[in-house]
Amino acid sequence: MSSERAKPFSRIAIVGVGQVGAAAAHALILSSIASELLLVDVKVDLRDAQVHDLSDVTYSGSSSTRVRAATYDEAGQCDVIVVTAGSKYFRGIGPLYVGAIFLLDVLQGHKLMRKCLGETSIGHMYQKMGIIRGVVKAMKPFRSDAILLIVANPVDLLTSLALEISQLPPSQVLGSGTFLDSVRLRGLLADKAGVATNSIDLYVVGVHGNSQVVAWSTATIAGVSLDKSLPHGTINHAELVKECKERTQSIIQAKGSTAFGIGSIVCSICSSILLDKRNVRPVSHLQPEFGCCFSLPVILGRKGIIRTIQLPLNSEEQAAVAESANTLGATIERINEDQ
Amino acid sequence: MSSERAKPFSRIAIVGVGQVGAAAAHALILSSIASELLLVDVKVDLRDAQVHDLSDVTYSGSSSTRVRAATYDEAGQCDVIVVTAGSKYFRGIGPLYVGAIFLLDVLQGHKLMRKCLGETSIGHMYQKMGIIRGVVKAMKPFRSDAILLIVANPVDLLTSLALEISQLPPSQVLGSGTFLDSVRLRGLLADKAGVATNSIDLYVVGVHGNSQVVAWSTATIAGVSLDKSLPHGTINHAELVKECKERTQSIIQAKGSTAFGIGSIVCSICSSILLDKRNVRPVSHLQPEFGCCFSLPVILGRKGIIRTIQLPLNSEEQAAVAESANTLGATIERINEDQ
Amino acid sequence: MSSERAKPFSRIAIVGVGQVGAAAAHALILSSIASELLLVDVKVDLRDAQVHDLSDVTYSGSSSTRVRAATYDEAGQCDVIVVTAGSKYFRGIGPLYVGAIFLLDVLQGHKLMRKCLGETSIGHMYQKMGIIRGVVKAMKPFRSDAILLIVANPVDLLTSLALEISQLPPSQVLGSGTFLDSVRLRGLLADKAGVATNSIDLYVVGVHGNSQVVAWSTATIAGVSLDKSLPHGTINHAELVKECKERTQSIIQAKGSTAFGIGSIVCSICSSILLDKRNVRPVSHLQPEFGCCFSLPVILGRKGIIRTIQLPLNSEEQAAVAESANTLGATIERINEDQ
Amino acid sequence: MSSERAKPFSRIAIVGVGQVGAAAAHALILSSIASELLLVDVKVDLRDAQVHDLSDVTYSGSSSTRVRAATYDEAGQCDVIVVTAGSKYFRGIGPLYVGAIFLLDVLQGHKLMRKCLGETSIGHMYQKMGIIRGVVKAMKPFRSDAILLIVANPVDLLTSLALEISQLPPSQVLGSGTFLDSVRLRGLLADKAGVATNSIDLYVVGVHGNSQVVAWSTATIAGVSLDKSLPHGTINHAELVKECKERTQSIIQAKGSTAFGIGSIVCSICSSILLDKRNVRPVSHLQPEFGCCFSLPVILGRKGIIRTIQLPLNSEEQAAVAESANTLGATIERINEDQ
Repeated sequence: MSSERAKPFSRIAIVGVGQVGAAAAHALILSSIASELLLVDVKVDLRDAQVHDLSDVTYSGSSSTRVRAATYDEAGQCDVIVVTAGSKYFRGIGPLYVGAIFLLDVLQGHKLMRKCLGETSIGHMYQKMGIIRGVVKAMKPFRSDAILLIVANPVDLLTSLALEISQLPPSQVLGSGTFLDSVRLRGLLADKAGVATNSIDLYVVGVHGNSQVVAWSTATIAGVSLDKSLPHGTINHAELVKECKERTQSIIQAKGSTAFGIGSIVCSICSSILLDKRNVRPVSHLQPEFGCCFSLPVILGRKGIIRTIQLPLNSEEQAAVAESANTLGATIERINEDQ
Repeated sequence: MSSERAKPFSRIAIVGVGQVGAAAAHALILSSIASELLLVDVKVDLRDAQVHDLSDVTYSGSSSTRVRAATYDEAGQCDVIVVTAGSKYFRGIGPLYVGAIFLLDVLQGHKLMRKCLGETSIGHMYQKMGIIRGVVKAMKPFRSDAILLIVANPVDLLTSLALEISQLPPSQVLGSGTFLDSVRLRGLLADKAGVATNSIDLYVVGVHGNSQVVAWSTATIAGVSLDKSLPHGTINHAELVKECKERTQSIIQAKGSTAFGIGSIVCSICSSILLDKRNVRPVSHLQPEFGCCFSLPVILGRKGIIRTIQLPLNSEEQAAVAESANTLGATIERINEDQ
Repeated sequence: MSSERAKPFSRIAIVGVGQVGAAAAHALILSSIASELLLVDVKVDLRDAQVHDLSDVTYSGSSSTRVRAATYDEAGQCDVIVVTAGSKYFRGIGPLYVGAIFLLDVLQGHKLMRKCLGETSIGHMYQKMGIIRGVVKAMKPFRSDAILLIVANPVDLLTSLALEISQLPPSQVLGSGTFLDSVRLRGLLADKAGVATNSIDLYVVGVHGNSQVVAWSTATIAGVSLDKSLPHGTINHAELVKECKERTQSIIQAKGSTAFGIGSIVCSICSSILLDKRNVRPVSHLQPEFGCCFSLPVILGRKGIIRTIQLPLNSEEQAAVAESANTLGATIERINEDQ
Repeated sequence: MSSERAKPFSRIAIVGVGQVGAAAAHALILSSIASELLLVDVKVDLRDAQVHDLSDVTYSGSSSTRVRAATYDEAGQCDVIVVTAGSKYFRGIGPLYVGAIFLLDVLQGHKLMRKCLGETSIGHMYQKMGIIRGVVKAMKPFRSDAILLIVANPVDLLTSLALEISQLPPSQVLGSGTFLDSVRLRGLLADKAGVATNSIDLYVVGVHGNSQVVAWSTATIAGVSLDKSLPHGTINHAELVKECKERTQSIIQAKGSTAFGIGSIVCSICSSILLDKRNVRPVSHLQPEFGCCFSLPVILGRKGIIRTIQLPLNSEEQAAVAESANTLGATIERINEDQ
């Protein structure tokens, strides 16, 4: 009886299986995107509970993806590695792994970062940087064609950091960036315009967060510019953007994180990569001109970022993107100097 | 421009959108089983956050199911109503709705129930009974062909209660019962035997919980009895059952509930009902002989329970089922007397 | 035992189950788009053989759609009715149904049509007109919200005819038009550009056939105009169009019809309608300005054509569309006069 | 711009793309089972037409499988190779490939085979043996872990032949056998019993064709034997078997072959193999005791036949299987002697 399982065709690892990682895992399993899904977490009990809970999903026949617990070493050998560790407020996620580096960070960085980010979030940012640094180092050396996807905020800073530490080529390190923002804005616009979401091209770009930029000037429905497609006054730009932002805030306030939304984004990105689909998606990636990672639309395939799409932004939008990028670049420089 | 949406073909309501309800909603949306999914919860902020988070999933193109917030009245008019309220430890879920009835219950029932269930869990049980009673009453009158699915523990007691209060026909009220237990046991057995889960027929039956019964004598692989299919000693019954139980406990301990597993069960049951699939599933339903609900395999279709499958249990298994049923029946009787 | 089947949520009829109708039925079944699929054909043996062959697909668990034979009357009561009858070269498809009308057509129309279409195809055209007229009349009166989809060439003429005879509102009668041409051109362009097909907006419009028009001036990748998205010289318009045309010809020559391609188009249109998806698709529909049906992109939903998208064609493209439309309009006028 | 496509994870080849091969290809593409589908046929025009027609399906977004034309050499390097060549009445399918061998066969074998098969079908049988021999030789040497699936009648004879010529291990050569018969019989039984097809275990076994055997004594619904599951007289065995047979005949008479049904079977087998699913399926494979291939249920996985399930046939069924097997074995012996 030869009941040994066949070697899987494709493997995705999820590093960090809290609320966001678990939602991503759930979506990946129900979509049967990879042959095997590896869950990694320093909290071994939580990791094993997620593996067992998700195994019941596969046992019920809803998936052809197998799920199992794995180590950081194994994660580094997967086709795609999704890092969600640190995607939520930090509550002491494993002193053995990230503690030492983290402590150093906090002590050294505190005085400078206070200036640029404000007192409250500096601590968290350093905690998260420590986590990302820890998990990326723990996975090295990576399989040479592995794609690393960072899903934790501040996503552009952490993607920049992961790129540096992982020593993977820039085309293989990306962050979820403004993808979810773009999807939600398109969704709300689609509802107002009475068309399917996938008939809309509209990108939120730049550094994810308060300074991200909606590329309204390039928005189209079925390839036709927004102002030609819709009667004047159908859409109030500012109102839509406000609604998007409020949704994020109310979701985070009521349930901790935009877990299902991010889960779908992760699923979409992994599918584009594993199936070499060549979809155009706004994800965070290295912008050589600025020396840091932020979101512009790219073509995604098995090799990661195949190429960047040059959006014909108007001058105002360009300036806004550049400004947010410069701020991020400066922050990263100061962090680096400080070490 | 006629952009009003078409009337949905099929609607599922989820009442209670905590961890379990949300996982079920996520699975239902990713499987596009119904045209519309209605979320109901007394915690309005949480309900709206789940709606918004899940809307992002539909915006990303992963589903053809629309999701929206709804009232209890609207839920009662759906094709299937999944009640997950009370599926987790109770932390004060809406005094306005269930408070009055609940208080009454606790005062009246406490002294008797203490005898049969022990001090610790009586309070919780009464809380949950109060919740189910409250939400079922709030949905009445039901659409005449609505199917009511109870997913909260003690599931057989609560299903019995929901049947009584809803005044729906017995074929239209069911509970998740031992379906997840059966799925997991089959999964573990399938792994050991080196076959696909869906080639195994094996049912956990009776009253869900400590007294549930594995119908080993009826187990088959590809229709062939287990002892003829597998070399002697391949399977250790007690060990497998123990592993199942430990998995439940470790999942609940580490993450609060077997949310993804139950989500798949809900998804499977809803699919059998809405698509009138006639699958054989072990779910809790009225056993007229015992006057209460517990699990035996039934054929599920659009009208709910089409008919019960008579499992040829051996005498030992029969006795064990009867014993657990009698205990449950007695408990229900005492609760009724007490009111 | 209540084993009667539940009323289906949604029904699609396919009228004409030769090569094209069968491929469409196969695609619809494997995609589980409707609850029930009704096959209609004057060739009863072929119809029943297709029903039985496709039943084996559903028995194998690959679909949740049921398939059965049906009458023209039943077809007229479906949500969507796909008419493929006449989609292939005519070989005597049921004299009892269409013979009388058809003979009349041929005798009366022959002398005039000879002028505008040339001797060879006039006979076929009149045969096909007779078929469409026969099947549409046989289905009347239609369910008031039925959508009628014509998939037979000359598609725009036949859609115009079906609109007139069916007496359904213009928003409920459509033809496959240039949808397949658009899909194939996008596919070839996508391969050359190294992007996913769904990132491209490009429409073939006008009267399907030799005079159809590629709206190159409106083509975009990710919403960015083609000439800005791709290095100069990447795409040779004429060559791509030529390749598309040659593919059609070689498929028809080798296997009789572009059955699988059309099957996918039918599947996509039915899905947009039944799930009220609001996709933008180039399908044939009434152009009031020209008094006949041809293809321009529209938003498709449960009510059929929700609205037309105004493509910003350049003047050359506009003129070409108008010219083809005028020729078709004149042909239809002469046919009408002639009767 | 790195627009080269990534190496596919999994590849299926279809050798012979007439009606059956094309239906199988259509089903495989719509189910997105493999990364790449290779079509092979000596009729190059037909092959290319099928590739182009199926490409339109992938362009329309209905699949993540790519399709392309390929050579016999390339087919031999795929994960699964489906041979449908010869699945229909032979009309001169490529003299260059199979002619020489074929002629030899006919001359030598005719006089002996006449005795055992009757005059009419001997010619066809030798033609088909020539085709299988030709295509299998043309693909040698096979990739060491390739699985070869024969879909052409007489399937057991041709599978036996393919096993011999291919020199692949017996676990890697299988035939569609009685899988479709089993599926259809289960489907008709399921309709009568009012249960889902997948709740039934019932196998047609033995040599496919007039001497195949229905293993009624082992039939179960939800693991419960048929006579205990259903009221006496619900099912008339002989009538159901007759209906199955008549369906096959009427399908073949009206449309040439059971193309969609076989397409689903191919799809199911390929999925079990590529996803290493371990489903139990009745397929033709080597029965060492009889020295030839016929159908008994096996567990299917990435390595092909993982193991045979020992069905507890009653003595009558066992005798019938043995008889049909002995006849096939004798036929094969005589063919061998004759060469």
